[in-house]
Amino acid sequence: MNHTLYAMQSSGNCYKPRLLMHQLGLDFRLVDTDTRDGSTRTIEFLALNPNGKVPLLVLPDGRRLAESNAMLLHLAEGTPYLPADRYERALCYQWLFFEQYSHEPYIAVARSWLSLQPGGRASVSAERLADLHAGGYRALRVMEARLEEAPWFAGSAYSIADIALFAYTHVAGEGDFDLAAYPRTRDWLQRVAGQPGHVGLDWRP
Amino acid sequence: MNHTLYAMQSSGNCYKPRLLMHQLGLDFRLVDTDTRDGSTRTIEFLALNPNGKVPLLVLPDGRRLAESNAMLLHLAEGTPYLPADRYERALCYQWLFFEQYSHEPYIAVARSWLSLQPGGRASVSAERLADLHAGGYRALRVMEARLEEAPWFAGSAYSIADIALFAYTHVAGEGDFDLAAYPRTRDWLQRVAGQPGHVGLDWRP
Repeated sequence: MNHTLYAMQSSGNCYKPRLLMHQLGLDFRLVDTDTRDGSTRTIEFLALNPNGKVPLLVLPDGRRLAESNAMLLHLAEGTPYLPADRYERALCYQWLFFEQYSHEPYIAVARSWLSLQPGGRASVSAERLADLHAGGYRALRVMEARLEEAPWFAGSAYSIADIALFAYTHVAGEGDFDLAAYPRTRDWLQRVAGQPGHVGLDWRP
Repeated sequence: MNHTLYAMQSSGNCYKPRLLMHQLGLDFRLVDTDTRDGSTRTIEFLALNPNGKVPLLVLPDGRRLAESNAMLLHLAEGTPYLPADRYERALCYQWLFFEQYSHEPYIAVARSWLSLQPGGRASVSAERLADLHAGGYRALRVMEARLEEAPWFAGSAYSIADIALFAYTHVAGEGDFDLAAYPRTRDWLQRVAGQPGHVGLDWRP
């Protein structure tokens, strides 16, 4: 048995395990599951993930794992995508939590309102959008400062911390974020896209 | 050199590494740092953590680590607090990300408005509070369902997943959450509080 991933193709969170599994050379089955049509709120899906979210990964033995960054850690254990150095691994943990707490709730949510939800651009309030942009730019400034110190988020090499942060940063423009003032971040996006086995958001197994 | 933890005493996020370091028998120095008086926005503090948040952990070699759940993972590596079983460790990752994305932004934020910020109860809007309660109760339902399957979040034993979720669940009442309908969660809170080396939110080294 291979892995099975329940995922929505346009979601950055769902893209993370797709990209890593491709880079690891792991075959997997993709089950399209759209959060916008109620597919994550069915009895059947809630039995797989009681938190009602994608991505949801079914392991080869049938056991289940939720949370995109937990999938990255699990799949990367024992591979070069999780640093062997203890401090670099700790920084990898740090940036994974930063991504979910200080980055995704602003940049991914702005993108969802402005580019994914039908009618979203017309219905999001100016106040809400200003909050999302303030939080997203705060995250981008923290990322830019980190990239002044090191070429990759965990330090010396490409890791799952870069995958997690790439997922929504590379489509931040779809949330009306302008990366012109973030040259190190733009260079890093190019370096991530140039990694062996890199595939884009639209890629399917 | 010991570890140094920059922390705000009332913060559940800051409580997590304090509790784990006590259970691990690690001596550490505590530097009180209050997010409400600007202490996390000084030039000096931003040099330690550019994201301007506590907790911030300085390791014995002087290197720094941010994000409470990253500290838990780093400190627990190679100890019984991070499961040795690969799937239980994956679940541990899962619940750490669940805590930061689906639990803390609701339960901790409601508690902050209602019990920590001076005048917060009078100034939080009814709509905002309803959103926080809806999200918090959604997280509590997911937790209660998990505790029908297993005694601990990662499975068979107490782990850092329990520490992370205990931090704000045990003070959810300060955010006006009522745990009466969550008997397994209330039993689990008692089991966590009964663990060897457990100390409460007020404990200081």
